[in-house]
Amino acid sequence: MNDPTSILADLREGNPLIHSMTNTVVPQITANVLLAVGAAPAMIDLPAEAEIFASIASGVLINVGNGSAEQHVAMRTAAAAAQRTNTPWVLDPVAVGGLPVRTQLAVDLLANQPSAIRGNASEIAALAGAGPGGRGVDAATSVESAIEPATGLAANTGSVVAISGPTDVVISDQGQTRITGGSPLMALVIGTGCSLGAVVAACIAVAPDRPHQATVAAHALFGAAGLVAARKASAPASFEIAWRDALYELTPDQVGELVEISDL
Amino acid sequence: MNDPTSILADLREGNPLIHSMTNTVVPQITANVLLAVGAAPAMIDLPAEAEIFASIASGVLINVGNGSAEQHVAMRTAAAAAQRTNTPWVLDPVAVGGLPVRTQLAVDLLANQPSAIRGNASEIAALAGAGPGGRGVDAATSVESAIEPATGLAANTGSVVAISGPTDVVISDQGQTRITGGSPLMALVIGTGCSLGAVVAACIAVAPDRPHQATVAAHALFGAAGLVAARKASAPASFEIAWRDALYELTPDQVGELVEISDL
Amino acid sequence: MNDPTSILADLREGNPLIHSMTNTVVPQITANVLLAVGAAPAMIDLPAEAEIFASIASGVLINVGNGSAEQHVAMRTAAAAAQRTNTPWVLDPVAVGGLPVRTQLAVDLLANQPSAIRGNASEIAALAGAGPGGRGVDAATSVESAIEPATGLAANTGSVVAISGPTDVVISDQGQTRITGGSPLMALVIGTGCSLGAVVAACIAVAPDRPHQATVAAHALFGAAGLVAARKASAPASFEIAWRDALYELTPDQVGELVEISDL
Repeated sequence: MNDPTSILADLREGNPLIHSMTNTVVPQITANVLLAVGAAPAMIDLPAEAEIFASIASGVLINVGNGSAEQHVAMRTAAAAAQRTNTPWVLDPVAVGGLPVRTQLAVDLLANQPSAIRGNASEIAALAGAGPGGRGVDAATSVESAIEPATGLAANTGSVVAISGPTDVVISDQGQTRITGGSPLMALVIGTGCSLGAVVAACIAVAPDRPHQATVAAHALFGAAGLVAARKASAPASFEIAWRDALYELTPDQVGELVEISDL
Repeated sequence: MNDPTSILADLREGNPLIHSMTNTVVPQITANVLLAVGAAPAMIDLPAEAEIFASIASGVLINVGNGSAEQHVAMRTAAAAAQRTNTPWVLDPVAVGGLPVRTQLAVDLLANQPSAIRGNASEIAALAGAGPGGRGVDAATSVESAIEPATGLAANTGSVVAISGPTDVVISDQGQTRITGGSPLMALVIGTGCSLGAVVAACIAVAPDRPHQATVAAHALFGAAGLVAARKASAPASFEIAWRDALYELTPDQVGELVEISDL
Repeated sequence: MNDPTSILADLREGNPLIHSMTNTVVPQITANVLLAVGAAPAMIDLPAEAEIFASIASGVLINVGNGSAEQHVAMRTAAAAAQRTNTPWVLDPVAVGGLPVRTQLAVDLLANQPSAIRGNASEIAALAGAGPGGRGVDAATSVESAIEPATGLAANTGSVVAISGPTDVVISDQGQTRITGGSPLMALVIGTGCSLGAVVAACIAVAPDRPHQATVAAHALFGAAGLVAARKASAPASFEIAWRDALYELTPDQVGELVEISDL
């Protein structure tokens, strides 16, 4: 059910335009990652333009990491526009839990029915109301302990919920899928998590009726690239280059062979 | 007429200070590219400071890609200050056409007489009033079909107009010059176009009486670096590193030998 | 007295959470550098969130380079919160002197008693009231000529004052320490100075009672990585990768062996 091959082939073929509203740290790597995997990036954070663009893009990412008050207004407008126009959109609840403004923003945005929610274990647990949140990009909570809150969040929202960690877990009404791959070095390159949210949006954009499988495919591609890059580099900066290259070079078949995907 | 050698030598010699007001995605690569080619970068987007800095910088870039309302105020102030103080400045009309706020901004800024306007074919055509714009950094329009609107835009504004594509075309009252070089991988590295606008400003800063030739020189340098990098790398991230290295390492003579420059 | 070994070992062990409020150009490299040296980055610039985060972080960086009016409000709030909660914090007075808004901001922030102030010679001299400032990341002033104003600044504020240059100088009531290392290529990679401010905050976070030694340790690590990277790369982009890798790979002992540290 969760073979990533066809969705990743459709991603390269489809070149979906992904409207990424993201935090101040990762726009450059997010755009480069989207280009590497076959998508087209656009970052648009002005309220008047974000509403328009979320309606014409193939998919939208809303990442509530460090942003301005103006961008937050735009995110609310864009999420509503995406919902209204049936544009797939992904919520990344960065550091939700400990910080009040973004926590309220993320909770409010759930009303606009994201296609998928992607975060680390602390963030997913906090968004589900089950934890205090982490301390930024770090996850203080284990993936296992976030599965129950994630399952509740998926049931309450109808969204696919993805927890990133040593093994990623994707949860929805289609069940639970685990993807094993990647490298510990990914946690030492900023934006490998944030750009995954954008690629989840890109995969759902080319498979809007299969959001669970599309989310699995995005995680599989990232995990496979991590495995390949870890063979070539043992320090974070050269790993980042090898990883971004692998995102571009790996064929869909190679991704399927490299990572382990198991359904529960 | 369009030998880039002397202007590129003057660029390394002159170390011009380039005030870059650019979008949220590319400040880091823009600064690194300016440093690599021999210029000094400064990003200043607060209205009160941008007005001062545009008056003392050697050149200014205004790139209307993703920015805040506050930055837009600063751009208007800076463009007026640049015009008042005869500071060369370059307009990059990112994604103009489809998006109303930036389109109005770019059209208004034309009144401040940019020394050069650089964009892809869709953006140039849209700014000239001849098309609906592209979908972001992508060009939906061919370079050839943008030549007529670009020629009109150059005539109406007195600016040099440069269209980036597989072959770049530079148009002004000095005629039309084509520069062939580069690599398709440049389109998969975010900021290779946006940083070109900054380097056009740097080249005009050292040759303010020859804006057409300076614009050609900047495009020649980027194209030559693209050719060199494509021999060393076949995936976008390692290509980016090789390309930025080549911008630093190529001598002006090598640039002249690598790219094809033809006048019409 | 200024052996960096134990503080750098504590840095890797302690994984301090560093709240970095920085300019629009360098968030990505700052986060990557913090991760490479063993710290955890968090960028938070909304006033309501910055106040909270500066109280719970292990250390705070406030870099007054290009930012928004909203971020400036947040910086004032965060500096006050850091002072109130005894959180170590570092001020980086980017381009202070020539630009009025940030100069006033930096001067005002001195009232919140930064643990350390790090800048190039022009910036430190200007902040001390002894010069007109530089032209951005460039230093127009020599390190030697900034030592007297820096000594005055350290005496007036009680802060450690660090001047970055070919030889770095760290000044406080503990005396004066010189660190020799690095490479001229570091000046051609944007963010090598700005991210140093963040790593100074990280080192002080793990040695809050030894801010002079911690500041020296951060400079030693950067200088050692510069020496190692310069052996591997001769152009800025590949140098950046080698330098970031070296920040991760160098052991504290290797840092101590590579750079020259001398007390006056």
